[in-house]
Amino acid sequence: MITDILLDEVKRKSCVCLGLDTRPGYIPSFIGDQDLSTGEKIFEFNRRIVDATCDLVGCYKVQIACYEALGLDGMKAYADTLKYIRSKGSIVIADVKRGDISSTAEQYALGHFTGDFEADMITVNAYMGEDAVSPYYPFLEKNKGLFVLVKTSNKSGVDFQDLGMTEDGEPLYVKMARKVAEWGRPFTGQSGFSAIGAVTGLTYPGEFETIKEVMPHTFLLIPGYGAQGGTGRDIASFFRDGVCGVVNSSRGLITAHKGKTDGEDYTDYVRQAVLDMKQDIEQWL
Amino acid sequence: MITDILLDEVKRKSCVCLGLDTRPGYIPSFIGDQDLSTGEKIFEFNRRIVDATCDLVGCYKVQIACYEALGLDGMKAYADTLKYIRSKGSIVIADVKRGDISSTAEQYALGHFTGDFEADMITVNAYMGEDAVSPYYPFLEKNKGLFVLVKTSNKSGVDFQDLGMTEDGEPLYVKMARKVAEWGRPFTGQSGFSAIGAVTGLTYPGEFETIKEVMPHTFLLIPGYGAQGGTGRDIASFFRDGVCGVVNSSRGLITAHKGKTDGEDYTDYVRQAVLDMKQDIEQWL
Repeated sequence: MITDILLDEVKRKSCVCLGLDTRPGYIPSFIGDQDLSTGEKIFEFNRRIVDATCDLVGCYKVQIACYEALGLDGMKAYADTLKYIRSKGSIVIADVKRGDISSTAEQYALGHFTGDFEADMITVNAYMGEDAVSPYYPFLEKNKGLFVLVKTSNKSGVDFQDLGMTEDGEPLYVKMARKVAEWGRPFTGQSGFSAIGAVTGLTYPGEFETIKEVMPHTFLLIPGYGAQGGTGRDIASFFRDGVCGVVNSSRGLITAHKGKTDGEDYTDYVRQAVLDMKQDIEQWL
Repeated sequence: MITDILLDEVKRKSCVCLGLDTRPGYIPSFIGDQDLSTGEKIFEFNRRIVDATCDLVGCYKVQIACYEALGLDGMKAYADTLKYIRSKGSIVIADVKRGDISSTAEQYALGHFTGDFEADMITVNAYMGEDAVSPYYPFLEKNKGLFVLVKTSNKSGVDFQDLGMTEDGEPLYVKMARKVAEWGRPFTGQSGFSAIGAVTGLTYPGEFETIKEVMPHTFLLIPGYGAQGGTGRDIASFFRDGVCGVVNSSRGLITAHKGKTDGEDYTDYVRQAVLDMKQDIEQWL
Protein backbone atom coordinates (compact mmCIF):
# COMPACT_ATOMS: atom_id res chain seq x y z
CA MET A 1 0.00 0.00 0.00
CA ILE A 2 1.11 3.55 -0.72
CA THR A 3 0.95 4.37 2.98
CA ASP A 4 3.73 1.85 3.67
CA ILE A 5 5.94 3.61 1.15
CA LEU A 6 4.98 7.03 2.48
CA LEU A 7 5.68 6.03 6.08
CA ASP A 8 9.08 4.76 4.96
CA GLU A 9 9.83 8.10 3.34
CA VAL A 10 8.69 9.90 6.48
CA LYS A 11 10.99 7.79 8.64
CA ARG A 12 13.98 8.25 6.32
CA LYS A 13 13.45 11.97 5.71
CA SER A 14 10.81 13.76 7.80
CA CYS A 15 7.07 14.19 8.27
CA VAL A 16 7.24 17.47 6.37
CA CYS A 17 4.87 17.66 3.41
CA LEU A 18 6.03 20.56 1.26
CA GLY A 19 3.10 22.31 -0.37
CA LEU A 20 3.69 23.68 -3.85
CA ASP A 21 0.78 26.13 -3.82
CA THR A 22 2.83 28.29 -6.12
CA ARG A 23 1.65 31.73 -7.19
CA PRO A 24 3.32 34.02 -9.68
CA GLY A 25 4.21 36.52 -6.93
CA TYR A 26 6.53 34.01 -5.26
CA ILE A 27 8.87 33.71 -8.23
CA PRO A 28 12.27 35.44 -7.98
CA SER A 29 13.01 37.85 -10.80
CA PHE A 30 15.86 35.79 -12.22
CA ILE A 31 13.14 33.34 -13.28
CA GLY A 32 10.40 35.94 -13.70
CA ASP A 33 12.49 37.89 -16.23
CA GLN A 34 13.00 34.90 -18.51
CA ASP A 35 11.11 34.64 -21.76
CA LEU A 36 8.75 31.96 -20.50
CA SER A 37 5.01 31.64 -19.98
CA THR A 38 3.71 32.08 -16.43
CA GLY A 39 3.17 28.33 -16.20
CA GLU A 40 6.72 27.64 -17.37
CA LYS A 41 8.07 30.03 -14.75
CA ILE A 42 6.06 28.31 -12.06
CA PHE A 43 7.36 24.93 -13.11
CA GLU A 44 10.95 26.23 -13.10
CA PHE A 45 10.38 27.65 -9.60
CA ASN A 46 8.95 24.32 -8.41
CA ARG A 47 11.61 22.21 -10.10
CA ARG A 48 14.43 23.98 -8.29
CA ILE A 49 12.62 23.65 -4.96
CA VAL A 50 12.14 19.92 -5.52
CA ASP A 51 15.84 19.51 -6.34
CA ALA A 52 16.76 21.37 -3.15
CA THR A 53 14.40 19.53 -0.80
CA CYS A 54 13.69 16.01 -2.03
CA ASP A 55 16.21 14.50 0.39
CA LEU A 56 14.44 16.21 3.29
CA VAL A 57 10.69 16.04 2.83
CA GLY A 58 8.46 12.99 3.26
CA CYS A 59 6.28 14.07 0.35
CA TYR A 60 4.99 16.98 -1.67
CA LYS A 61 1.47 18.32 -1.99
CA VAL A 62 0.40 20.29 -5.03
CA GLN A 63 -2.69 22.50 -4.72
CA ILE A 64 -4.34 22.24 -8.12
CA ALA A 65 -6.39 25.43 -7.62
CA CYS A 66 -3.25 27.56 -8.06
CA TYR A 67 -2.71 25.94 -11.46
CA GLU A 68 -6.33 25.96 -12.60
CA ALA A 69 -6.26 29.70 -11.91
CA LEU A 70 -3.82 30.04 -14.83
CA GLY A 71 -5.84 28.05 -17.34
CA LEU A 72 -4.22 25.67 -19.81
CA ASP A 73 -0.76 27.09 -19.23
CA GLY A 74 -1.19 26.45 -15.52
CA MET A 75 -2.41 22.90 -16.09
CA LYS A 76 0.73 22.20 -18.12
CA ALA A 77 2.81 23.46 -15.17
CA TYR A 78 0.74 21.25 -12.86
CA ALA A 79 1.35 18.16 -15.02
CA ASP A 80 5.06 18.95 -15.33
CA THR A 81 5.40 19.48 -11.57
CA LEU A 82 3.76 16.15 -10.67
CA LYS A 83 5.86 14.35 -13.27
CA TYR A 84 9.08 15.92 -12.02
CA ILE A 85 8.40 15.06 -8.38
CA ARG A 86 7.65 11.45 -9.31
CA SER A 87 10.76 11.27 -11.51
CA LYS A 88 12.80 12.04 -8.39
CA GLY A 89 11.24 9.06 -6.63
CA SER A 90 9.27 11.29 -4.26
CA ILE A 91 5.62 10.92 -3.38
CA VAL A 92 3.16 13.59 -4.48
CA ILE A 93 -0.28 14.29 -3.08
CA ALA A 94 -2.58 16.08 -5.51
CA ASP A 95 -4.71 18.40 -3.40
CA VAL A 96 -7.76 18.33 -5.63
CA LYS A 97 -10.54 17.73 -3.07
CA ARG A 98 -12.71 16.14 -5.75
CA GLY A 99 -16.06 14.71 -4.76
CA ASP A 100 -18.78 13.44 -7.06
CA ILE A 101 -21.05 10.48 -7.80
CA SER A 102 -19.64 7.13 -8.91
CA SER A 103 -19.58 7.51 -12.68
CA THR A 104 -17.99 10.95 -12.35
CA ALA A 105 -15.56 9.92 -9.61
CA GLU A 106 -14.41 7.15 -11.97
CA GLN A 107 -13.40 9.86 -14.41
CA TYR A 108 -11.56 11.76 -11.68
CA ALA A 109 -9.77 8.54 -10.74
CA LEU A 110 -8.58 8.14 -14.33
CA GLY A 111 -7.64 11.80 -14.43
CA HIS A 112 -5.58 11.87 -11.26
CA PHE A 113 -4.20 8.33 -11.01
CA THR A 114 -3.21 7.89 -14.67
CA GLY A 115 -2.01 10.04 -17.56
CA ASP A 116 -0.80 13.64 -17.53
CA PHE A 117 -2.03 14.40 -14.02
CA GLU A 118 -0.92 11.17 -12.36
CA ALA A 119 -0.32 11.60 -8.63
CA ASP A 120 0.37 9.05 -5.89
CA MET A 121 -2.40 10.22 -3.60
CA ILE A 122 -5.27 12.68 -3.88
CA THR A 123 -7.51 14.51 -1.45
CA VAL A 124 -11.24 13.73 -1.66
CA ASN A 125 -14.44 15.35 -0.33
CA ALA A 126 -17.03 12.76 0.76
CA TYR A 127 -20.08 14.99 1.36
CA MET A 128 -21.76 12.76 -1.26
CA GLY A 129 -20.98 9.61 0.74
CA GLU A 130 -19.15 6.42 -0.18
CA ASP A 131 -20.08 6.80 -3.88
CA ALA A 132 -17.58 9.65 -3.96
CA VAL A 133 -14.82 7.38 -2.64
CA SER A 134 -15.44 3.81 -3.85
CA PRO A 135 -14.50 4.43 -7.52
CA TYR A 136 -10.92 4.94 -6.32
CA TYR A 137 -10.75 1.55 -4.57
CA PRO A 138 -9.41 -0.40 -7.58
CA PHE A 139 -6.44 1.99 -7.67
CA LEU A 140 -5.56 1.50 -4.01
CA GLU A 141 -4.18 -1.96 -4.76
CA LYS A 142 -1.86 -0.29 -7.29
CA ASN A 143 -0.05 1.90 -4.78
CA LYS A 144 -2.43 4.83 -4.99
CA GLY A 145 -4.04 6.46 -1.98
CA LEU A 146 -6.61 8.94 -0.72
CA PHE A 147 -6.92 11.53 2.00
CA VAL A 148 -10.60 12.17 2.75
CA LEU A 149 -11.57 15.51 4.31
CA VAL A 150 -12.59 14.91 7.91
CA LYS A 151 -11.85 18.04 9.93
CA THR A 152 -10.58 21.07 8.12
CA SER A 153 -8.47 23.81 9.66
CA ASN A 154 -10.35 26.79 8.24
CA LYS A 155 -12.49 29.00 10.45
CA SER A 156 -15.86 28.09 8.95
CA GLY A 157 -15.05 24.38 8.96
CA VAL A 158 -17.30 24.33 12.04
CA ASP A 159 -20.32 25.50 10.01
CA PHE A 160 -21.22 21.88 9.32
CA GLN A 161 -18.40 19.64 10.54
CA ASP A 162 -19.06 20.47 14.20
CA LEU A 163 -22.83 20.08 14.12
CA GLY A 164 -23.95 17.29 16.41
CA MET A 165 -26.02 14.40 15.15
CA THR A 166 -29.31 13.36 16.69
CA GLU A 167 -28.68 9.69 17.38
CA ASP A 168 -25.76 10.07 19.70
CA GLY A 169 -24.63 13.68 19.74
CA GLU A 170 -21.47 12.99 17.76
CA PRO A 171 -20.48 15.82 15.48
CA LEU A 172 -20.40 15.35 11.73
CA TYR A 173 -16.60 15.17 11.53
CA VAL A 174 -16.57 12.19 13.92
CA LYS A 175 -19.21 10.47 11.76
CA MET A 176 -17.01 11.19 8.77
CA ALA A 177 -13.97 9.82 10.63
CA ARG A 178 -15.83 6.58 11.46
CA LYS A 179 -16.84 6.10 7.84
CA VAL A 180 -13.35 6.80 6.56
CA ALA A 181 -11.91 4.25 9.00
CA GLU A 182 -14.52 1.70 7.88
CA TRP A 183 -13.95 2.31 4.15
CA GLY A 184 -10.20 2.08 4.66
CA ARG A 185 -10.09 -1.16 6.61
CA PRO A 186 -9.77 -3.51 3.57
CA PHE A 187 -6.83 -1.43 2.33
CA THR A 188 -4.63 -1.64 5.41
CA GLY A 189 -0.94 -2.05 4.63
CA GLN A 190 1.90 -3.80 6.46
CA SER A 191 2.58 -0.62 8.40
CA GLY A 192 -0.89 -0.91 9.93
CA PHE A 193 -2.10 2.17 8.08
CA SER A 194 -4.79 2.19 5.41
CA ALA A 195 -4.37 3.60 1.91
CA ILE A 196 -7.43 5.71 2.73
CA GLY A 197 -6.12 8.50 4.90
CA ALA A 198 -7.78 11.61 6.30
CA VAL A 199 -7.26 15.36 6.25
CA THR A 200 -7.42 16.60 9.82
CA GLY A 201 -6.59 20.23 10.49
CA LEU A 202 -4.30 21.39 13.23
CA THR A 203 -6.35 24.37 14.30
CA TYR A 204 -8.31 22.53 16.96
CA PRO A 205 -5.78 20.19 18.60
CA GLY A 206 -8.21 19.00 21.30
CA GLU A 207 -10.22 17.22 18.65
CA PHE A 208 -7.21 15.22 17.59
CA GLU A 209 -7.61 12.84 20.52
CA THR A 210 -11.08 11.87 19.35
CA ILE A 211 -9.91 11.46 15.78
CA LYS A 212 -6.98 9.25 16.81
CA GLU A 213 -9.31 7.11 18.89
CA VAL A 214 -11.88 6.71 16.12
CA MET A 215 -9.36 6.09 13.33
CA PRO A 216 -6.16 4.57 14.78
CA HIS A 217 -5.20 2.97 11.44
CA THR A 218 -5.77 6.06 9.34
CA PHE A 219 -2.78 8.01 8.11
CA LEU A 220 -3.27 11.75 8.46
CA LEU A 221 -2.57 14.71 6.24
CA ILE A 222 -2.31 17.60 8.67
CA PRO A 223 -2.63 21.12 7.30
CA GLY A 224 -2.45 24.22 9.45
CA TYR A 225 1.22 24.28 10.45
CA GLY A 226 2.99 27.64 10.39
CA ALA A 227 1.01 30.22 8.42
CA GLN A 228 -2.21 28.81 9.87
CA GLY A 229 -1.01 28.76 13.50
CA GLY A 230 -0.09 25.16 14.38
CA THR A 231 3.19 24.49 16.23
CA GLY A 232 5.72 21.65 16.30
CA ARG A 233 4.77 20.89 19.88
CA ASP A 234 1.12 20.35 18.88
CA ILE A 235 2.19 17.89 16.23
CA ALA A 236 4.60 16.02 18.47
CA SER A 237 1.73 15.43 20.89
CA PHE A 238 -0.28 13.73 18.12
CA PHE A 239 2.76 11.64 17.22
CA ARG A 240 3.60 10.53 20.74
CA ASP A 241 2.65 6.90 19.97
CA GLY A 242 4.54 7.00 16.67
CA VAL A 243 4.30 9.10 13.56
CA CYS A 244 0.82 8.76 12.07
CA GLY A 245 0.80 11.41 9.40
CA VAL A 246 2.48 14.10 7.37
CA VAL A 247 2.37 17.79 8.20
CA ASN A 248 1.84 20.23 5.40
CA SER A 249 3.28 23.69 5.10
CA SER A 250 3.07 25.66 1.87
CA ARG A 251 3.48 29.43 2.06
CA GLY A 252 5.67 29.08 5.18
CA LEU A 253 8.22 27.15 3.15
CA ILE A 254 8.02 28.28 -0.46
CA THR A 255 8.01 32.00 0.34
CA ALA A 256 10.89 31.75 2.86
CA HIS A 257 13.10 33.71 0.47
CA LYS A 258 10.71 36.65 0.07
CA GLY A 259 12.32 39.91 1.11
CA LYS A 260 15.68 38.17 1.48
CA THR A 261 16.81 37.24 -1.98
CA ASP A 262 15.62 37.52 -5.53
CA GLY A 263 18.26 35.18 -6.93
CA GLU A 264 19.11 31.53 -7.46
CA ASP A 265 19.82 31.09 -3.78
CA TYR A 266 16.07 31.24 -3.02
CA THR A 267 16.14 27.48 -2.72
CA ASP A 268 18.65 27.78 0.15
CA TYR A 269 16.01 29.69 2.11
CA VAL A 270 13.34 27.17 1.28
CA ARG A 271 15.64 24.32 2.28
CA GLN A 272 16.48 26.06 5.55
CA ALA A 273 12.78 26.60 6.25
CA VAL A 274 12.20 22.86 5.77
CA LEU A 275 15.09 22.08 8.14
CA ASP A 276 13.66 24.50 10.71
CA MET A 277 10.21 22.95 10.47
CA LYS A 278 11.65 19.45 10.74
CA GLN A 279 13.57 20.45 13.84
CA ASP A 280 10.62 22.33 15.32
CA ILE A 281 8.64 19.09 15.24
CA GLU A 282 11.39 16.57 15.98
CA GLN A 283 12.69 18.35 19.06
CA TRP A 284 9.50 17.35 20.85
CA LEU A 285 9.35 13.76 19.67
CA MET B 1 -27.68 38.75 -11.47
CA ILE B 2 -26.92 35.71 -13.59
CA THR B 3 -30.06 34.00 -12.31
CA ASP B 4 -32.22 36.69 -13.96
CA ILE B 5 -30.53 35.96 -17.28
CA LEU B 6 -30.80 32.22 -16.78
CA LEU B 7 -34.49 32.42 -15.87
CA ASP B 8 -35.05 34.45 -19.01
CA GLU B 9 -33.36 31.77 -21.08
CA VAL B 10 -35.45 29.10 -19.37
CA LYS B 11 -38.66 30.97 -20.15
CA ARG B 12 -37.69 31.57 -23.79
CA LYS B 13 -36.33 28.08 -24.43
CA SER B 14 -36.87 25.44 -21.74
CA CYS B 15 -35.72 24.31 -18.30
CA VAL B 16 -33.56 21.66 -19.94
CA CYS B 17 -29.90 21.80 -18.93
CA LEU B 18 -27.97 19.74 -21.44
CA GLY B 19 -25.04 17.99 -19.80
CA LEU B 20 -21.92 17.60 -21.92
CA ASP B 21 -20.38 14.80 -19.87
CA THR B 22 -18.80 13.61 -23.07
CA ARG B 23 -16.81 10.39 -23.22
CA PRO B 24 -14.87 9.05 -26.18
CA GLY B 25 -17.31 6.13 -26.59
CA TYR B 26 -20.14 8.51 -27.47
CA ILE B 27 -18.47 9.89 -30.58
CA PRO B 28 -19.79 8.71 -33.98
CA SER B 29 -17.15 7.21 -36.23
CA PHE B 30 -17.34 9.98 -38.83
CA ILE B 31 -15.68 12.14 -36.16
CA GLY B 32 -13.79 9.32 -34.47
CA ASP B 33 -12.05 8.39 -37.73
CA GLN B 34 -10.67 11.87 -38.30
CA ASP B 35 -7.01 12.60 -37.71
CA LEU B 36 -7.63 14.50 -34.48
CA SER B 37 -6.64 14.07 -30.84
CA THR B 38 -9.25 12.59 -28.49
CA GLY B 39 -9.83 16.06 -27.04
CA GLU B 40 -10.32 17.56 -30.48
CA LYS B 41 -12.85 14.85 -31.34
CA ILE B 42 -14.73 15.54 -28.14
CA PHE B 43 -14.85 19.24 -28.86
CA GLU B 44 -16.09 18.56 -32.40
CA PHE B 45 -18.80 16.26 -30.97
CA ASN B 46 -19.82 18.93 -28.45
CA ARG B 47 -19.72 21.80 -30.95
CA ARG B 48 -22.19 20.11 -33.27
CA ILE B 49 -24.52 19.34 -30.37
CA VAL B 50 -24.42 22.97 -29.24
CA ASP B 51 -25.23 24.15 -32.76
CA ALA B 52 -28.18 21.74 -32.89
CA THR B 53 -29.65 22.56 -29.47
CA CYS B 54 -28.80 26.12 -28.43
CA ASP B 55 -32.26 27.38 -29.47
CA LEU B 56 -33.89 24.76 -27.23
CA VAL B 57 -31.98 24.43 -23.97
CA GLY B 58 -31.96 26.89 -21.07
CA CYS B 59 -28.29 26.21 -20.42
CA TYR B 60 -25.47 23.70 -20.69
CA LYS B 61 -23.57 21.92 -17.96
CA VAL B 62 -20.08 20.61 -18.56
CA GLN B 63 -18.77 17.92 -16.20
CA ILE B 64 -15.07 18.74 -15.87
CA ALA B 65 -14.19 15.22 -14.61
CA CYS B 66 -14.71 13.79 -18.11
CA TYR B 67 -12.13 16.25 -19.43
CA GLU B 68 -9.64 15.93 -16.57
CA ALA B 69 -9.69 12.19 -17.30
CA LEU B 70 -7.99 12.96 -20.63
CA GLY B 71 -5.23 15.14 -19.24
CA LEU B 72 -4.04 18.28 -21.00
CA ASP B 73 -5.72 17.32 -24.27
CA GLY B 74 -9.00 16.98 -22.38
CA MET B 75 -8.56 20.33 -20.64
CA LYS B 76 -8.12 22.00 -24.02
CA ALA B 77 -11.41 20.40 -25.14
CA TYR B 78 -12.99 21.64 -21.91
CA ALA B 79 -11.80 25.21 -22.50
CA ASP B 80 -12.88 25.12 -26.15
CA THR B 81 -16.32 23.76 -25.22
CA LEU B 82 -17.00 26.48 -22.62
CA LYS B 83 -15.80 29.16 -25.01
CA TYR B 84 -17.96 27.86 -27.83
CA ILE B 85 -21.11 27.71 -25.71
CA ARG B 86 -20.56 31.27 -24.50
CA SER B 87 -19.84 32.47 -28.05
CA LYS B 88 -23.35 31.30 -28.96
CA GLY B 89 -24.79 33.49 -26.20
CA SER B 90 -25.78 30.46 -24.11
CA ILE B 91 -25.15 30.01 -20.40
CA VAL B 92 -22.76 27.33 -19.24
CA ILE B 93 -22.52 25.77 -15.80
CA ALA B 94 -19.12 24.27 -15.02
CA ASP B 95 -19.79 21.22 -12.92
CA VAL B 96 -16.57 21.33 -10.94
CA LYS B 97 -17.85 20.84 -7.37
CA ARG B 98 -14.82 22.64 -6.00
CA GLY B 99 -14.60 23.24 -2.27
CA ASP B 100 -11.62 24.58 -0.35
CA ILE B 101 -10.51 27.23 2.16
CA SER B 102 -10.62 30.93 1.29
CA SER B 103 -7.17 31.47 -0.21
CA THR B 104 -7.58 28.36 -2.35
CA ALA B 105 -11.19 29.08 -3.31
CA GLU B 106 -9.96 32.50 -4.53
CA GLN B 107 -7.73 30.64 -6.97
CA TYR B 108 -10.63 28.46 -8.09
CA ALA B 109 -12.72 31.60 -8.60
CA LEU B 110 -10.02 33.03 -10.87
CA GLY B 111 -9.73 29.70 -12.63
CA HIS B 112 -13.40 29.20 -13.37
CA PHE B 113 -14.74 32.76 -13.66
CA THR B 114 -11.91 34.22 -15.76
CA GLY B 115 -9.45 33.04 -18.40
CA ASP B 116 -9.39 29.79 -20.36
CA PHE B 117 -11.95 28.02 -18.17
CA GLU B 118 -14.41 30.90 -17.79
CA ALA B 119 -17.94 29.67 -17.10
CA ASP B 120 -21.09 31.56 -16.12
CA MET B 121 -21.85 29.45 -13.08
CA ILE B 122 -20.04 26.71 -11.20
CA THR B 123 -21.04 24.01 -8.74
CA VAL B 124 -19.48 24.20 -5.27
CA ASN B 125 -19.13 21.83 -2.30
CA ALA B 126 -19.47 23.62 1.05
CA TYR B 127 -18.44 20.86 3.49
CA MET B 128 -15.76 23.35 4.59
CA GLY B 129 -18.38 26.01 5.37
CA GLU B 130 -18.79 29.58 4.17
CA ASP B 131 -15.02 29.96 3.57
CA ALA B 132 -15.50 27.64 0.62
CA VAL B 133 -18.17 29.95 -0.85
CA SER B 134 -17.39 33.56 0.13
CA PRO B 135 -14.36 34.00 -2.19
CA TYR B 136 -16.80 33.79 -5.10
CA TYR B 137 -19.01 36.65 -3.80
CA PRO B 138 -17.13 39.44 -5.64
CA PHE B 139 -17.86 37.67 -8.92
CA LEU B 140 -21.60 37.39 -8.28
CA GLU B 141 -22.02 41.11 -8.96
CA LYS B 142 -20.41 40.48 -12.35
CA ASN B 143 -23.06 38.06 -13.61
CA LYS B 144 -21.44 34.92 -12.25
CA GLY B 145 -23.24 32.40 -10.10
CA LEU B 146 -22.95 29.30 -7.94
CA PHE B 147 -24.85 26.11 -7.31
CA VAL B 148 -23.95 24.73 -3.88
CA LEU B 149 -24.44 21.00 -3.25
CA VAL B 150 -27.37 20.56 -0.89
CA LYS B 151 -29.00 17.21 -1.59
CA THR B 152 -27.40 14.93 -4.09
CA SER B 153 -29.19 12.26 -6.11
CA ASN B 154 -26.67 9.45 -5.64
CA LYS B 155 -27.45 6.46 -3.46
CA SER B 156 -24.88 7.15 -0.74
CA GLY B 157 -25.82 10.84 -0.56
CA VAL B 158 -27.70 9.79 2.58
CA ASP B 159 -24.44 8.67 4.29
CA PHE B 160 -24.04 12.16 5.71
CA GLN B 161 -26.64 14.45 4.16
CA ASP B 162 -29.53 12.67 5.86
CA LEU B 163 -28.00 12.46 9.32
CA GLY B 164 -30.09 14.38 11.83
CA MET B 165 -28.59 17.14 13.93
CA THR B 166 -28.82 17.23 17.72
CA GLU B 167 -30.28 20.69 18.27
CA ASP B 168 -33.49 20.23 16.36
CA GLY B 169 -33.39 16.95 14.49
CA GLU B 170 -33.00 18.60 11.11
CA PRO B 171 -30.88 16.59 8.71
CA LEU B 172 -27.60 17.96 7.41
CA TYR B 173 -28.98 18.79 3.98
CA VAL B 174 -31.61 21.09 5.51
CA LYS B 175 -28.88 22.84 7.52
CA MET B 176 -26.95 23.21 4.29
CA ALA B 177 -30.08 24.55 2.57
CA ARG B 178 -30.60 27.15 5.32
CA LYS B 179 -26.99 28.33 5.04
CA VAL B 180 -27.14 28.51 1.26
CA ALA B 181 -30.33 30.60 1.47
CA GLU B 182 -28.67 32.90 4.02
CA TRP B 183 -25.44 33.31 2.03
CA GLY B 184 -27.44 34.01 -1.11
CA ARG B 185 -29.79 36.65 0.28
CA PRO B 186 -27.54 39.67 -0.54
CA PHE B 187 -27.27 38.46 -4.12
CA THR B 188 -30.95 38.27 -4.97
CA GLY B 189 -31.81 39.45 -8.47
CA GLN B 190 -34.89 41.13 -9.94
CA SER B 191 -36.40 37.72 -10.63
CA GLY B 192 -36.41 37.08 -6.89
CA PHE B 193 -33.77 34.37 -7.21
CA SER B 194 -30.29 34.57 -5.75
CA ALA B 195 -27.07 34.14 -7.72
CA ILE B 196 -26.25 31.44 -5.19
CA GLY B 197 -28.29 28.44 -6.25
CA ALA B 198 -28.38 24.87 -5.01
CA VAL B 199 -27.94 21.39 -6.40
CA THR B 200 -30.89 19.30 -5.26
CA GLY B 201 -31.26 15.81 -6.64
CA LEU B 202 -34.46 14.40 -7.99
CA THR B 203 -34.13 10.96 -6.48
CA TYR B 204 -36.06 11.78 -3.32
CA PRO B 205 -38.94 14.01 -4.44
CA GLY B 206 -40.57 14.10 -0.99
CA GLU B 207 -37.66 16.15 0.29
CA PHE B 208 -38.24 18.79 -2.32
CA GLU B 209 -41.08 20.28 -0.34
CA THR B 210 -38.78 20.97 2.60
CA ILE B 211 -36.10 22.40 0.35
CA LYS B 212 -38.56 24.73 -1.38
CA GLU B 213 -39.84 25.90 1.98
CA VAL B 214 -36.37 26.54 3.40
CA MET B 215 -34.98 28.21 0.28
CA PRO B 216 -37.81 29.83 -1.72
CA HIS B 217 -35.42 32.31 -3.38
CA THR B 218 -32.82 29.76 -4.38
CA PHE B 219 -32.60 28.68 -7.99
CA LEU B 220 -32.12 24.94 -8.33
CA LEU B 221 -29.93 22.75 -10.47
CA ILE B 222 -31.76 19.45 -10.53
CA PRO B 223 -29.84 16.36 -11.59
CA GLY B 224 -31.37 12.89 -11.72
CA TYR B 225 -33.73 13.18 -14.69
CA GLY B 226 -33.86 10.26 -17.10
CA ALA B 227 -30.88 7.95 -16.66
CA GLN B 228 -31.12 8.44 -12.89
CA GLY B 229 -34.86 7.79 -12.66
CA GLY B 230 -36.62 11.16 -12.31
CA THR B 231 -39.70 11.90 -14.44
CA GLY B 232 -41.23 15.00 -16.01
CA ARG B 233 -44.19 14.71 -13.69
CA ASP B 234 -41.91 14.89 -10.62
CA ILE B 235 -40.36 18.06 -11.95
CA ALA B 236 -43.63 19.69 -12.86
CA SER B 237 -44.75 19.21 -9.27
CA PHE B 238 -41.74 21.22 -8.04
CA PHE B 239 -42.47 23.91 -10.59
CA ARG B 240 -46.16 24.26 -9.83
CA ASP B 241 -45.65 27.76 -8.38
CA GLY B 242 -43.42 28.74 -11.28
CA VAL B 243 -40.18 27.47 -12.69
CA CYS B 244 -37.49 27.59 -9.99
CA GLY B 245 -34.65 25.69 -11.57
CA VAL B 246 -33.07 23.87 -14.46
CA VAL B 247 -33.19 20.13 -14.96
CA ASN B 248 -30.06 18.37 -16.08
CA SER B 249 -29.81 15.38 -18.33
CA SER B 250 -26.52 14.23 -19.77
CA ARG B 251 -26.27 10.63 -21.00
CA GLY B 252 -30.00 10.56 -21.75
CA LEU B 253 -29.50 13.33 -24.32
CA ILE B 254 -25.99 13.08 -25.72
CA THR B 255 -26.12 9.34 -26.32
CA ALA B 256 -29.58 9.41 -27.94
CA HIS B 257 -28.00 8.47 -31.28
CA LYS B 258 -26.22 5.36 -29.97
CA GLY B 259 -27.28 2.24 -31.86
CA LYS B 260 -29.24 4.37 -34.31
CA THR B 261 -26.72 6.28 -36.35
CA ASP B 262 -23.00 6.68 -36.62
CA GLY B 263 -23.17 9.66 -38.94
CA GLU B 264 -23.60 13.43 -39.00
CA ASP B 265 -27.28 13.09 -38.23
CA TYR B 266 -26.43 12.14 -34.61
CA THR B 267 -27.33 15.68 -33.65
CA ASP B 268 -30.89 15.10 -34.96
CA TYR B 269 -31.29 12.38 -32.34
CA VAL B 270 -29.86 14.58 -29.62
CA ARG B 271 -32.16 17.43 -30.64
CA GLN B 272 -35.16 15.10 -30.64
CA ALA B 273 -34.22 13.82 -27.18
CA VAL B 274 -34.14 17.43 -25.93
CA LEU B 275 -37.57 18.07 -27.49
CA ASP B 276 -38.93 14.90 -25.87
CA MET B 277 -37.57 15.90 -22.46
CA LYS B 278 -38.96 19.41 -22.82
CA GLN B 279 -42.37 18.00 -23.68
CA ASP B 280 -42.20 15.37 -20.94
CA ILE B 281 -41.86 18.18 -18.41
CA GLU B 282 -44.02 20.85 -20.01
CA GLN B 283 -47.05 18.60 -20.51
CA TRP B 284 -47.54 18.63 -16.75
CA LEU B 285 -46.99 22.32 -16.17
